[in-house]
Amino acid sequence: MQDSLELAVLIQQRLDRFIDTQTAQLTALGKDTAALLNSARKFLSGGKRFRAQALALGYQAITPLHLGSPLNTEAARVVTAASALELFHAAALIHDDIIDRSATRRGHDAVHTAFSKQHINAAWRGNSAHFGVSAAILLGDLLQSWADQLFQEALTDLPAKQAQHVRSLFEKMRVEVAFGQYFDVLEEQYPEFAPHDIQMQRITQVLTFKSAKYSVADPLVIGAAFANATPEAENALLNYGIPVGIAFQLRDDIMGVFGDTSRTGKPVGDDLLSGKRTFLVALARAQLTASIRGVFDELFGNPDLSPKQLKLLQNTITDTGALTATEETIAKNLETAFDALTTAHFGHEATQQLIGLAKKLAYRDS
Amino acid sequence: MQDSLELAVLIQQRLDRFIDTQTAQLTALGKDTAALLNSARKFLSGGKRFRAQALALGYQAITPLHLGSPLNTEAARVVTAASALELFHAAALIHDDIIDRSATRRGHDAVHTAFSKQHINAAWRGNSAHFGVSAAILLGDLLQSWADQLFQEALTDLPAKQAQHVRSLFEKMRVEVAFGQYFDVLEEQYPEFAPHDIQMQRITQVLTFKSAKYSVADPLVIGAAFANATPEAENALLNYGIPVGIAFQLRDDIMGVFGDTSRTGKPVGDDLLSGKRTFLVALARAQLTASIRGVFDELFGNPDLSPKQLKLLQNTITDTGALTATEETIAKNLETAFDALTTAHFGHEATQQLIGLAKKLAYRDS
Repeated sequence: MQDSLELAVLIQQRLDRFIDTQTAQLTALGKDTAALLNSARKFLSGGKRFRAQALALGYQAITPLHLGSPLNTEAARVVTAASALELFHAAALIHDDIIDRSATRRGHDAVHTAFSKQHINAAWRGNSAHFGVSAAILLGDLLQSWADQLFQEALTDLPAKQAQHVRSLFEKMRVEVAFGQYFDVLEEQYPEFAPHDIQMQRITQVLTFKSAKYSVADPLVIGAAFANATPEAENALLNYGIPVGIAFQLRDDIMGVFGDTSRTGKPVGDDLLSGKRTFLVALARAQLTASIRGVFDELFGNPDLSPKQLKLLQNTITDTGALTATEETIAKNLETAFDALTTAHFGHEATQQLIGLAKKLAYRDS
Repeated sequence: MQDSLELAVLIQQRLDRFIDTQTAQLTALGKDTAALLNSARKFLSGGKRFRAQALALGYQAITPLHLGSPLNTEAARVVTAASALELFHAAALIHDDIIDRSATRRGHDAVHTAFSKQHINAAWRGNSAHFGVSAAILLGDLLQSWADQLFQEALTDLPAKQAQHVRSLFEKMRVEVAFGQYFDVLEEQYPEFAPHDIQMQRITQVLTFKSAKYSVADPLVIGAAFANATPEAENALLNYGIPVGIAFQLRDDIMGVFGDTSRTGKPVGDDLLSGKRTFLVALARAQLTASIRGVFDELFGNPDLSPKQLKLLQNTITDTGALTATEETIAKNLETAFDALTTAHFGHEATQQLIGLAKKLAYRDS
């Protein structure tokens, strides 16, 4: 995917340009707008741009896409839509970091942390953490509006019926991810693991709606819809995208237990410390005898685990075969995805790029 | 405004129908969707529907609107758009209640309070308050998506140029209110009153962007744009709407200090307890001698004020003449608004209704 860097640059330029325009329109509101606008600008620079790539690839699966300068109308449309997805994703992450109480994001302060520090540094009155949360809620809301606005821009001059279809996909994505996130939050509230099959069902639901559809399948299908794909082609991309998205999330689960801090930017064994009931963990736990499971449950989710205890949990998970089984599930999902590509008969280059994306998402280490 | 009840019923039916459709589309997500959906349904029943009324009146200022059953296409469009504004407003209130740490809304639990109670009742793990906040953030996000979706529905089959114009007004409103809310939050963080003129400038900015435009002027202009108003007519509605919106908020300020709990549903002297720097309070404070201002500042914003201390602050504000001056400012703003109507030459009935709305907003007691 030699195009992915090129696309990332175009996305960044498009987002910068969008913020410039917004900033110019907001001068009447005075200089106090600066903190939110700067925070938006900062948060919108960087990131992996997976969703943007998926959207562009979805388009390319149907119709060639030329990203060379100057951009033609269709390429500009794709870049605008992909930028809108990244805007929406930024909004989701800002709210997510409040919900997950994550103080950092990509090695920097999370938005709520940054605003909270601003409050502390200015020696303002009231609760700094609450100010951070408040400002981050509002910035997330602002970015949701912007995302919507930019996505609508991408629909300009499309035939009405196509525009409506593309929009409906975007709307569905937004609604489903809100529920996916809610399910994820809900899962964290339950004091105990559910019986294995119910637990796996709940995990699969979050996997599907928060990760697989939102991060991979929906952007692909939206991209394809911009290229006026047939329902069959959209379906093929869904059948490719969902297993790829599941593999993407299962890789996240593995990194959450075994990941290299220097690559992930997260603490070693993050999911063990936070007690995140992932596919990997649930699989491991189901293999334990009742007595060992008791020890496991005692340690799991304790934020103060010693390195030795962490290692013990990691080894337990490996010894059950759950790590191997999760790797196999990742491989199997990729196989399913590749089968969907075989049936679909997209062009050779697009197919190669989709295979590349799948491997990249499933076998990343950060 | 005999129509306002009729409109309120139509709005409620439209919102209910929208949630029904959404609910039907979400069955694949399983039964865990119920809590969010029920909460949405509950929160969307009731409210004053001022914004919906303003939108309908903005339309009527340009073109007659027949709300009788069965609704014609144009009336249905207006009802849909007005319902979308109410949806957006609900989203804003849900997030606002987190930001303001308001435990109640319209005499019921705020959304975050309700979810937090659900957490307590279920004896879930972790922090109940944080769960409440998390679920309320997500519900607010969901309702923002819905609002957007419903607003877009209202644009269906409008000429492209008109649709784009109406949308741009909606987008501008959303962006400006996010900043207005942020300014409001920011104001609360400053440890002290600013010098009087700077303080009044900041207060006016919040008044304009959080209240006047968002609650009155923008809905009116959006309604007018649906009726394909001329730029002059839109401008006239803005010149009417902004002073009405300011009067609306100044009335809120007066109720925040002198309001009747049984009517407002808020504690007596709410703004005095919370230390809200309103137009009324800033005006009063500017009239105090340095020594009395010292006493005032000592008491102002103390949540544990005794009834006697509250009375003292209320009397101080009255004695400075600030209450009278605020009432005069309300009256003057209405005059400005009525002048705008005189220049505008809207139809007789629409003008009467706009006068009625202005009086209702400026002289309400709840």
